[in-house]
Amino acid sequence: MWVQRAIRFEPRLRGFHLVTAEVLEALPELGGISVGILHLLIQHTSASLALSENASPQVRRDFETWFDQAVPEGAPYWTHTLEGDDDMPAHVKAALLGPALTLPIASGRLALGTWQGIYLCEHRDRGGSRTVLATAWGESGDR
Amino acid sequence: MWVQRAIRFEPRLRGFHLVTAEVLEALPELGGISVGILHLLIQHTSASLALSENASPQVRRDFETWFDQAVPEGAPYWTHTLEGDDDMPAHVKAALLGPALTLPIASGRLALGTWQGIYLCEHRDRGGSRTVLATAWGESGDR
Amino acid sequence: MWVQRAIRFEPRLRGFHLVTAEVLEALPELGGISVGILHLLIQHTSASLALSENASPQVRRDFETWFDQAVPEGAPYWTHTLEGDDDMPAHVKAALLGPALTLPIASGRLALGTWQGIYLCEHRDRGGSRTVLATAWGESGDR
Repeated sequence: MWVQRAIRFEPRLRGFHLVTAEVLEALPELGGISVGILHLLIQHTSASLALSENASPQVRRDFETWFDQAVPEGAPYWTHTLEGDDDMPAHVKAALLGPALTLPIASGRLALGTWQGIYLCEHRDRGGSRTVLATAWGESGDR
Repeated sequence: MWVQRAIRFEPRLRGFHLVTAEVLEALPELGGISVGILHLLIQHTSASLALSENASPQVRRDFETWFDQAVPEGAPYWTHTLEGDDDMPAHVKAALLGPALTLPIASGRLALGTWQGIYLCEHRDRGGSRTVLATAWGESGDR
Repeated sequence: MWVQRAIRFEPRLRGFHLVTAEVLEALPELGGISVGILHLLIQHTSASLALSENASPQVRRDFETWFDQAVPEGAPYWTHTLEGDDDMPAHVKAALLGPALTLPIASGRLALGTWQGIYLCEHRDRGGSRTVLATAWGESGDR
């Protein structure tokens, strides 16, 4: 069985945001997959998806801090500056974290570790709404 | 339905190269998949695949600049130097970007965002030709 | 056909470890898949999976060195420090490399490049045992 659906995320502040619950709410069909995979692609080049610690807001803030110093705005080596100082660093950050997650489904649930959650990483100051195309497939079966 | 095929890319200069058209030309069967996934694995450890901005050559040049300063050649901490100054940094860059892309197919087409394109990232000075193993699967159906 | 199984890895020292053989030994069913995919998810947020050079221990040591200087312990900007100096850098390193690998299967074997091997990347000083959930699917067929 296959499910494919675009999930639209409202505009968020620049930073790292936990969106596991939002993703699951948009995909009730996962409950009917006994073994399978959920694939998520964020269809943008200045935002990304990651899987990391799901409890501490400090962790998500430290992610933002680290990425901001590792891929600095206003560095003299950037040539693609027409779309704003935050644009080119956003492309690099997004590529480092990646645009997609591929996650296992077991007995109708995402089979993540206890501390793993899905991050939507917004790398622009005003990125606007973001679309994630979700595709799930696997064997049907009751939870 | 499953399709699996090796795509051979001619040697390219060190840098970030947009190869979306080349990938699609090699995989005409994608047009017959109504919903599915395309997986690409570059079978090398000093080149990588990424998904990023598909319009501006400046963006691709800035990617090269950032990675060169973040993973510098000739740094005193490298011990694996026998294969050339560009070798060990190439392994790190390749791991940061990753060797694989997993991309959704919808109605016979890659379902990418408007600005997303596939990059072949060549991290060596003379990397030679590169092989990408493409695997696609999904439900058959007319476009 | 689908196979899904948790693979438990004994505690390892902090660093980058080649685990291709261990993964394959745990998944004899791969030999019966003519074309398919193996997905691996490490169910932790301070360890990661990568695909890189499978021959030189120096390469794996240089990975550790680069990541340690790029994501330094004790940096003044970290705020999530309660779980130890190695904790927050481990989350960032893990996100940069990623928690999952998606690998093609061809004729009953992982279709990796000659020099590619699976790394388990342990980013904590004492990470303990690690669980990788393996999910494989594809068309059945003799090797």
